[in-house]
Amino acid sequence: MRTSKPFIESTIHALEQVRLNSPLVHCITNSVVVNFTANALLAVGAAPAMVDIVGEAGPFATVASGLLINLGTPTPEQRAAMIEAQAGAAAGNTPWVLDPVAIGSLPVRTPLAYRLRDLHPTVIRGNASEIIALSGMGEGGRGVDALDSVEAALPAARSLAETTSGIVAVSGPVDLLTDGASVVRIANGDALLTRITGGGCALGAVMAAFLAAHDDRLAATVAAVTVYTVAAELAAEKSAGPGSFGVAFLDALYSVDADDIAARASIS
Amino acid sequence: MRTSKPFIESTIHALEQVRLNSPLVHCITNSVVVNFTANALLAVGAAPAMVDIVGEAGPFATVASGLLINLGTPTPEQRAAMIEAQAGAAAGNTPWVLDPVAIGSLPVRTPLAYRLRDLHPTVIRGNASEIIALSGMGEGGRGVDALDSVEAALPAARSLAETTSGIVAVSGPVDLLTDGASVVRIANGDALLTRITGGGCALGAVMAAFLAAHDDRLAATVAAVTVYTVAAELAAEKSAGPGSFGVAFLDALYSVDADDIAARASIS
Amino acid sequence: MRTSKPFIESTIHALEQVRLNSPLVHCITNSVVVNFTANALLAVGAAPAMVDIVGEAGPFATVASGLLINLGTPTPEQRAAMIEAQAGAAAGNTPWVLDPVAIGSLPVRTPLAYRLRDLHPTVIRGNASEIIALSGMGEGGRGVDALDSVEAALPAARSLAETTSGIVAVSGPVDLLTDGASVVRIANGDALLTRITGGGCALGAVMAAFLAAHDDRLAATVAAVTVYTVAAELAAEKSAGPGSFGVAFLDALYSVDADDIAARASIS
Repeated sequence: MRTSKPFIESTIHALEQVRLNSPLVHCITNSVVVNFTANALLAVGAAPAMVDIVGEAGPFATVASGLLINLGTPTPEQRAAMIEAQAGAAAGNTPWVLDPVAIGSLPVRTPLAYRLRDLHPTVIRGNASEIIALSGMGEGGRGVDALDSVEAALPAARSLAETTSGIVAVSGPVDLLTDGASVVRIANGDALLTRITGGGCALGAVMAAFLAAHDDRLAATVAAVTVYTVAAELAAEKSAGPGSFGVAFLDALYSVDADDIAARASIS
Repeated sequence: MRTSKPFIESTIHALEQVRLNSPLVHCITNSVVVNFTANALLAVGAAPAMVDIVGEAGPFATVASGLLINLGTPTPEQRAAMIEAQAGAAAGNTPWVLDPVAIGSLPVRTPLAYRLRDLHPTVIRGNASEIIALSGMGEGGRGVDALDSVEAALPAARSLAETTSGIVAVSGPVDLLTDGASVVRIANGDALLTRITGGGCALGAVMAAFLAAHDDRLAATVAAVTVYTVAAELAAEKSAGPGSFGVAFLDALYSVDADDIAARASIS
Repeated sequence: MRTSKPFIESTIHALEQVRLNSPLVHCITNSVVVNFTANALLAVGAAPAMVDIVGEAGPFATVASGLLINLGTPTPEQRAAMIEAQAGAAAGNTPWVLDPVAIGSLPVRTPLAYRLRDLHPTVIRGNASEIIALSGMGEGGRGVDALDSVEAALPAARSLAETTSGIVAVSGPVDLLTDGASVVRIANGDALLTRITGGGCALGAVMAAFLAAHDDRLAATVAAVTVYTVAAELAAEKSAGPGSFGVAFLDALYSVDADDIAARASIS
């Protein structure tokens, strides 16, 4: 396992690259969080594009810098666009993130998530119950809520990372990331992130932006989680509740800098 | 008619129950307010899940704690999911709220609202014009705006409550709620609630959360309206306009407590 | 070309009319910005109605005060509703705004934008790359980002205005508006407007509101841009980043008044 200092340096470098190059992030995501996701990407310095219709999703994914496929509210049109976008991403060598929202018992999204899993996502992001369900080791959570602890999802995360040859990120009070071999834990963030909708979903999009900014995929994913959760800490200090937190969080994604990362990042 | 003191006590109790049990609220709602609705539910302590596709809406409604069906932007997929969800709610004995947004002359949603009305919603929530239109006594408003006063909708509300054996809630400067026999008026809230989109729609979702927290359906609905409109008052005192009001309102839904309810609730 | 003083007077008058009459603005817009667009309309004093399904879009456009057709996330249902709404607007003499979001290479929305362009929109609003692409003189931008300067789009804007007999508005650091003959430049606004999603899209909706408030279409469009960008300046002075800017902007649209316009409007 790598020590935390290189991760902090690569996080700071990746953040600079995102702001310098403004990667074009193609999102197919759910109707609940689409606005917040676009605003989070803009705040951190990326360029969002929500292209989720058949006929456009494929060619756009080929030229985008990164792609997010989020299964939160998968209409028939979006489901077809997801398959098309994944093929476009593969053709263009575009890194892509799969977020298997609320899979487990729900009968439409669950088989679709399995199908996308087998197409080798660059990163899979979910809560513990979603990761366990996607690995085939368990049955999922309650709607979007995890019923399992992050650490309990480690075997499932390792297994998924090995079979997909990608990164798996389990979100929770301490985030756990693995490429199958190394395991990285990030102990930043704030519970208010779970009291606004899209707190996890927008992180998947930010991961897609950072994958475009750093060749090492584990380091890129660590950078995204670290920037995101350090911003959440900064925001929580200025918040009176979830409303003001959501606003302060976008401000913090916009202003978070190398000094904040160096002072606060808790990576092990 | 019951006096207001028992309603204040049951409101405080229901709020505690929502925060303790975090009821899973299944929403099929319009694209305009879906983010705000999820955030309002999270802020008050409930767990939102926006499951609005065919094949998932039915089984999810069966296991959810409450269901909202809101007709604001009813795509063909959502319309089919609404019918499926209602059947699932009936099978699971899940309380459900119907919000007949902008019905009257609009030719797709209006017959769908009548069809759903006849399936005995636990609660119907709308503005005066929508309630009058749903009762068959009038023609609706101008888009989402009511052209009728709340009091003018009392006969329609009573009639609807009797034929559906449910609760009918008419939103306005003074909210009017009836089970057909009793009539309760709640004189809380703030006009800024009408200057943000979703001010009424999110209330329907909060009602679904409170129906899961209290067996007496009239008391549960009174509790939802009281908590929601007292939070609006608290927010308005800290707001410079509709933008800051929307933020402060989510903070207030998160922090409103028994003392606020006891001090401010105006129920008669 | 008219001097700026009449435009400032007509802007102040149009703002008063919007607040007095609360025009009903029918929007068919993208899922990313639909909430922000509705809130911007409510804040400035208009009444939003997002009616974007087949069977309702046509009759509603006929009776609405103004219509926005925005191509941001054009599902098949929305595409059919757009065609229906345009016909309804034509039948009802309803002014309508076309926003050709991200056209150029995207193969579904681009031909649809050409088709709608040929149906004589009252106003076309876009960034420089979108206006150039719609005129047939260039290939568009990068997703929603303009790659061309506003001034470079002047020939395209003039050409489009002449062929459509409408107004063309090019958004950017300095907004450029033309009816084919006159050219008006408005040098208000703030760069933070580009760091929140919907900064441009919501302006199209506000234009539809102002078209209902003033018979001179160029003056109405100038009024919408001026009110909107002066509000952005007021908001930026109170903002710590894009999150707080979005909130302050809605507050500013609500409170901006004749004195603010007179003191700040930079129209030439």
